[in-house]
Amino acid sequence: METRRLDKKATEAIVDSLLETYKNDSGTNFIEVTNLPFQEKVIEILDMLRELLFPGYTGRERVTTSNLEFVVGDLLCKVNDELTEQVERAFRHACRIKKCEDCDCRKKAEDAVYHLLGELPRIREILKTDVAAAYDGDPAAKSYEEVVLSYPGLAAIATHRIAHELYLQDVPLIPRMMSEWAHKLTGIDIHPGATIGERFFIDHGTGVVIGETAIIGRNVRLYQGVTLGALRFKTDKNGRLIKGGKRHPTVEDDVVISAEATILGDITIGKGAVIGSNTWVQDDVQAGVTVKMENPELKIAGRGAIKNHLRDAKH
Amino acid sequence: METRRLDKKATEAIVDSLLETYKNDSGTNFIEVTNLPFQEKVIEILDMLRELLFPGYTGRERVTTSNLEFVVGDLLCKVNDELTEQVERAFRHACRIKKCEDCDCRKKAEDAVYHLLGELPRIREILKTDVAAAYDGDPAAKSYEEVVLSYPGLAAIATHRIAHELYLQDVPLIPRMMSEWAHKLTGIDIHPGATIGERFFIDHGTGVVIGETAIIGRNVRLYQGVTLGALRFKTDKNGRLIKGGKRHPTVEDDVVISAEATILGDITIGKGAVIGSNTWVQDDVQAGVTVKMENPELKIAGRGAIKNHLRDAKH
Amino acid sequence: METRRLDKKATEAIVDSLLETYKNDSGTNFIEVTNLPFQEKVIEILDMLRELLFPGYTGRERVTTSNLEFVVGDLLCKVNDELTEQVERAFRHACRIKKCEDCDCRKKAEDAVYHLLGELPRIREILKTDVAAAYDGDPAAKSYEEVVLSYPGLAAIATHRIAHELYLQDVPLIPRMMSEWAHKLTGIDIHPGATIGERFFIDHGTGVVIGETAIIGRNVRLYQGVTLGALRFKTDKNGRLIKGGKRHPTVEDDVVISAEATILGDITIGKGAVIGSNTWVQDDVQAGVTVKMENPELKIAGRGAIKNHLRDAKH
Repeated sequence: METRRLDKKATEAIVDSLLETYKNDSGTNFIEVTNLPFQEKVIEILDMLRELLFPGYTGRERVTTSNLEFVVGDLLCKVNDELTEQVERAFRHACRIKKCEDCDCRKKAEDAVYHLLGELPRIREILKTDVAAAYDGDPAAKSYEEVVLSYPGLAAIATHRIAHELYLQDVPLIPRMMSEWAHKLTGIDIHPGATIGERFFIDHGTGVVIGETAIIGRNVRLYQGVTLGALRFKTDKNGRLIKGGKRHPTVEDDVVISAEATILGDITIGKGAVIGSNTWVQDDVQAGVTVKMENPELKIAGRGAIKNHLRDAKH
Repeated sequence: METRRLDKKATEAIVDSLLETYKNDSGTNFIEVTNLPFQEKVIEILDMLRELLFPGYTGRERVTTSNLEFVVGDLLCKVNDELTEQVERAFRHACRIKKCEDCDCRKKAEDAVYHLLGELPRIREILKTDVAAAYDGDPAAKSYEEVVLSYPGLAAIATHRIAHELYLQDVPLIPRMMSEWAHKLTGIDIHPGATIGERFFIDHGTGVVIGETAIIGRNVRLYQGVTLGALRFKTDKNGRLIKGGKRHPTVEDDVVISAEATILGDITIGKGAVIGSNTWVQDDVQAGVTVKMENPELKIAGRGAIKNHLRDAKH
Repeated sequence: METRRLDKKATEAIVDSLLETYKNDSGTNFIEVTNLPFQEKVIEILDMLRELLFPGYTGRERVTTSNLEFVVGDLLCKVNDELTEQVERAFRHACRIKKCEDCDCRKKAEDAVYHLLGELPRIREILKTDVAAAYDGDPAAKSYEEVVLSYPGLAAIATHRIAHELYLQDVPLIPRMMSEWAHKLTGIDIHPGATIGERFFIDHGTGVVIGETAIIGRNVRLYQGVTLGALRFKTDKNGRLIKGGKRHPTVEDDVVISAEATILGDITIGKGAVIGSNTWVQDDVQAGVTVKMENPELKIAGRGAIKNHLRDAKH
């Protein structure tokens, strides 16, 4: 029996047939694409931005009142240089696809990054309200520091508030690369397009999905597995999806949405409503109401039973 | 059109307004906080602890019967040094918040770490039962080694058994940093406060949430998306959450909880009960029973149908 | 009060009792196991394989039409060397467990890797259809490049298509190490045994579980939290699980399965069926039908109501 070892000839054959598959592809090919944003660099920049928002929190660098101004100034300049480079690559890439030739991609990149950096103080103020909301909303939270150091919900919303500013500046690719990085780390998938108010808290978080056109008010709390998704997609006369268009829920102020609730479509959950666990909502919910599943009809086999599982008063 | 480039003046303006946001914050500020535990170091220590529990499993270091004692002794001393340093930082941090001045944080750290290290042989014995439970409970498991090398449920419970010992010693911040690291890697969110018996197996695991005051017996098996959560929170007369207090389920021995079941509140799931997929349980369940959704009322459109979806006998 | 510091004697005591726990264990012990595959190396190899499938996409290396052939040839040879080494370790490990002495593990490894590398051009062609399916199926997708650079569903299926080839060659340990790596990164848990057709798209993805014996046709779309799982396990006369055997669903072409649907057992979801969110299906579904929950019976408290939540026409 001959070993099917990879000799020179076999290697060349595989290389050739791989090269064949790279030909004439648009979009799955990154050859001669010198300006593609670089994933690892985008993550490094994100780390620096989070350090600007919570200086010293990683413990990597000792930050004191005497060196603070220099640490911050230095980080800000680094972020500006490196992010501008990556954003320029993303704009150039978009221009190549659109065969546009007269864009000043460098200038667009500088403008977009300038916008983001100018928003950092405001983002920091909003994040403080998010930290407070987590502490106020979770009986297990022992201190604000614990929230900043370990809560995945805080990591996700901090990343989102950064990515969203770049999304608003029409930066291609990078906002989604940032939000997918947070998704990897936290299991929380917030599209950079989503609009989210202050005092936002996601507890536990794994499996949360917030769609591109969702609008979330102030002081909203979500638990793990909550979806704010689209119900159905519009198609053109050729049956192709129409991209864009409001298709996700609007959630007004002070709403609480419990674990695993699935809320679909361009509906409105009114101010102060409470949506129970495992519900499935596809219609508007008026302000102030509590929505939960009817006492679930559980089937019980064996020698025991659920005690009083229909005792209404208890719910 | 002028480019809004980040010149020196613009940089100074942003730095100044960022500095403004750092002022007078408690808890979102890590400036002059020289003793904060360092996330990356905590993860390194966790890796060493897992190496002590399963020597050689990463393949990073060749472990033989001749070098074993030295490898283990060396790792143990390293963990002791580095973890004591991090735990001391965590205690100092807590003292700073409480404005306590007479704690011997170093001594408290040495005691806590000594406790954990002394528990390692016991943790190792329990983890063996967890590995066996995974192998016995999953038809896809090919060997014990596969469980140790690749099962996320095993990584999560191994981390939990370590973090829980530090939690029991009232170490601030670090237990949660450890459990959130496991959460990142596995999608399984076990609060370090949870009490969990031997032969514990979580299959697949993504989306599992186990709350701080949950108590789980021996030989319990959970699937992906299971929540053992809190139903409602107690508040004081000012409407603020009361921290602490038993608020999560007690799950007795030999219980199986299927995918996506949501179990909420300080209820008891009796010995040997089986909780079906996608159920939503908020009341005590007696020992030995099987709880499942009534045959779901599914609505069917189009030319076909679910075959016999109400055939009761089959369920 | 004496500090319980870890002195030499205490260290020796802990080391001794740890050593005791390492004795006589099969499967949780990796001592003298010189051929175990090395997790970090497996991940490095996986990165190289993904670079072969989408050359240049990480931005790490500049790929041009002039250097392409060399980059690809070089990567292919590296993957061949390093993967053969790891696969050989995995085979040797299996032989040690089975006490088999006459296997040519090196040759088996060379054959398995040769098979995988020869399949790469075909895998690349199939992945192009997966990218197209993601773009066509998600209104938020802005370009093919965005899908390749940031969609977790694409990362998961690319890894699966590689791991599955090694699974088909009966390589121990490594396919699952690869699929668990993708699980960590994406929250999508696809067992390397699953058979999946072209144009496969998982949107969002966190919490998806696809079991070992699932069979999925062409042009199937899944959303976050979908389980294609096993319902019950067969046991032998001693009550031990019987390993193997078809126990997961078969999903035919053109099926769409919405968020959080749980589909259990060796059933068939017929061609073109649509399974609604949060459903729980344990029986065959005929081709072409739409299955959804009956309008959920939601209980509403407070001053408002769900508007028309039973308006059937709207659904």
